[in-house]
Amino acid sequence: MQIYFHNHSADAAAPLTEGEWQRHAQGLRPEGRPLFGSDPAQFRIHAPQVEVLVASPMGIRDLLPLATPHLRLLFVTWAGLDRLAPYDWVPPGVIVLNNSGAHALKAAEYVVMGMLMLKNSMPALARAQAEHRWIPAVGRTLAGGHLVVVGLGAIGGATATLARKVGMRVTGVRSTPRPHPDCEVVVGLDALDAVLPTADFVALALPHSPSTHHLLDRRRLALLPARAGIVNVGRGRTIDEAAMCDLLEAGRLAGAVLDVFEEEPLPPAYRAWTTPNLVVTPHMSADDPDTVNDATIEILVRNLVAWQRGEPLPNEFDLVRGTRVRA
Amino acid sequence: MQIYFHNHSADAAAPLTEGEWQRHAQGLRPEGRPLFGSDPAQFRIHAPQVEVLVASPMGIRDLLPLATPHLRLLFVTWAGLDRLAPYDWVPPGVIVLNNSGAHALKAAEYVVMGMLMLKNSMPALARAQAEHRWIPAVGRTLAGGHLVVVGLGAIGGATATLARKVGMRVTGVRSTPRPHPDCEVVVGLDALDAVLPTADFVALALPHSPSTHHLLDRRRLALLPARAGIVNVGRGRTIDEAAMCDLLEAGRLAGAVLDVFEEEPLPPAYRAWTTPNLVVTPHMSADDPDTVNDATIEILVRNLVAWQRGEPLPNEFDLVRGTRVRA
Repeated sequence: MQIYFHNHSADAAAPLTEGEWQRHAQGLRPEGRPLFGSDPAQFRIHAPQVEVLVASPMGIRDLLPLATPHLRLLFVTWAGLDRLAPYDWVPPGVIVLNNSGAHALKAAEYVVMGMLMLKNSMPALARAQAEHRWIPAVGRTLAGGHLVVVGLGAIGGATATLARKVGMRVTGVRSTPRPHPDCEVVVGLDALDAVLPTADFVALALPHSPSTHHLLDRRRLALLPARAGIVNVGRGRTIDEAAMCDLLEAGRLAGAVLDVFEEEPLPPAYRAWTTPNLVVTPHMSADDPDTVNDATIEILVRNLVAWQRGEPLPNEFDLVRGTRVRA
Repeated sequence: MQIYFHNHSADAAAPLTEGEWQRHAQGLRPEGRPLFGSDPAQFRIHAPQVEVLVASPMGIRDLLPLATPHLRLLFVTWAGLDRLAPYDWVPPGVIVLNNSGAHALKAAEYVVMGMLMLKNSMPALARAQAEHRWIPAVGRTLAGGHLVVVGLGAIGGATATLARKVGMRVTGVRSTPRPHPDCEVVVGLDALDAVLPTADFVALALPHSPSTHHLLDRRRLALLPARAGIVNVGRGRTIDEAAMCDLLEAGRLAGAVLDVFEEEPLPPAYRAWTTPNLVVTPHMSADDPDTVNDATIEILVRNLVAWQRGEPLPNEFDLVRGTRVRA
């Protein structure tokens, strides 16, 4: 099995290395050493032999299409692959996988941070600090609150787990309402309207696809109680940002902590920078540079082991639905 | 047993009410209804009969000294009573109690929020948001990190518990190194110098007294690794703020989230407002207005029950050490 790792110079994470591979590859049948490259010309030389290609969305379009007669698996080192859609460039018969799971704990911690920041009036206090003003401020306890997690993939699931550990009640929402061990209840997307009015917080951990576009639209956002806060670690286009900013400005929502936006990078003149009780972070909630490479290769190896055994691939990506097949 | 609740107009919390009292007083022998007042003149009328006086540090000095021949217990509705020192105005033979425990979970959540904010570069990101700048930013996972909690009273203990729930290793530091169920190890204050170099975070949950003044002085702060962050929910004077700001400016400390300061309110021109990677909040970390009254009365009743039974009082305050007798 010839594996080829393509490291692109614009990747946010550090290059994947042979040392990291060796740490995790024990479970595999040894079949030669993987190749590592960072230059598309280098890949072109090896393309006829490559069976498994590992690359980020930043670099992959420089490599394909190309004559890759033995390519079977394309492992993309991100979880959300919407930047690569439409997927008509994927060679026929090639299975695409993502690294869903590599970001789960980091992103879950960001969600808990966001909820604690909103409970403690941190958006107003950040402004007061910038103006050197000691203002009266109120903080409230997060424990006991009700979190609605929309999307129960790796990140949404880890968010439910961590939220429960800090004492919250968690309702999960996903397309097929199978139970989750850390959700008191899991409902289908068709029941979203019914649970929104009961939320203290909504955490969004969804990929973007036609079916999730503006899932929180103006009508659904208005179903949230005024005490509610929103944390988004999925994709910006799952929320109608203009409608959300309207509600925040009107005091009809308590706050929002957003790591993802309809347009990224957020333009300097954009409304979200100054919307009250809105915290902006630059799409960094899910990436821990200290752990992402090890986690990614561990997930890759888990999938390669399954592939060698002829078992279902845990991270197989559904190019039509734009999410994992088995999420 | 005649109980008198004095609500002062400058109290941050809402007045204590008879309804709140009734919810928690079941365990007590019924001995007449408590009295409630907010005017010192009103207290003067009842002072000769009062056995238990409940008041905040804001109001108490308006009431005493006065002829209170039957006064036995003085329950102060704060945890840190340093504002009332020296305690020479306390009538001889009267036992002072605080409401330690009423703030524990709220303050513990603040500490976890502070650590997550520092792990996620939030001080730099708050500044970037104020300037409408989308900057490269790094976040790292909190789980697996090492927290040193200094002070294991109600707040420090709850902090250890919550930090462990989110996956941290916790070392406790207190004057007498008895074990704590959520600390891997507890050491005495004499071992503080040995544990500081191993910390990813130091949380301070200490009262201020001569023995804790500048406990984190310039020499001890320099023992912390450059990756370390500080969260203070106790009292500002337990840290040498100038030394800490020097280290933050030199990049020799990763950050600090401070709710308490050597001088409060923080003066507008004070250095801490603009020190890099320093988050300022206005002494609000421990107060949840939704729960503090219920929690305070629950603690009061627990102590009254112990008093009626002749048992040790859990919240008895040591006027010499400036902390609970049994902390």
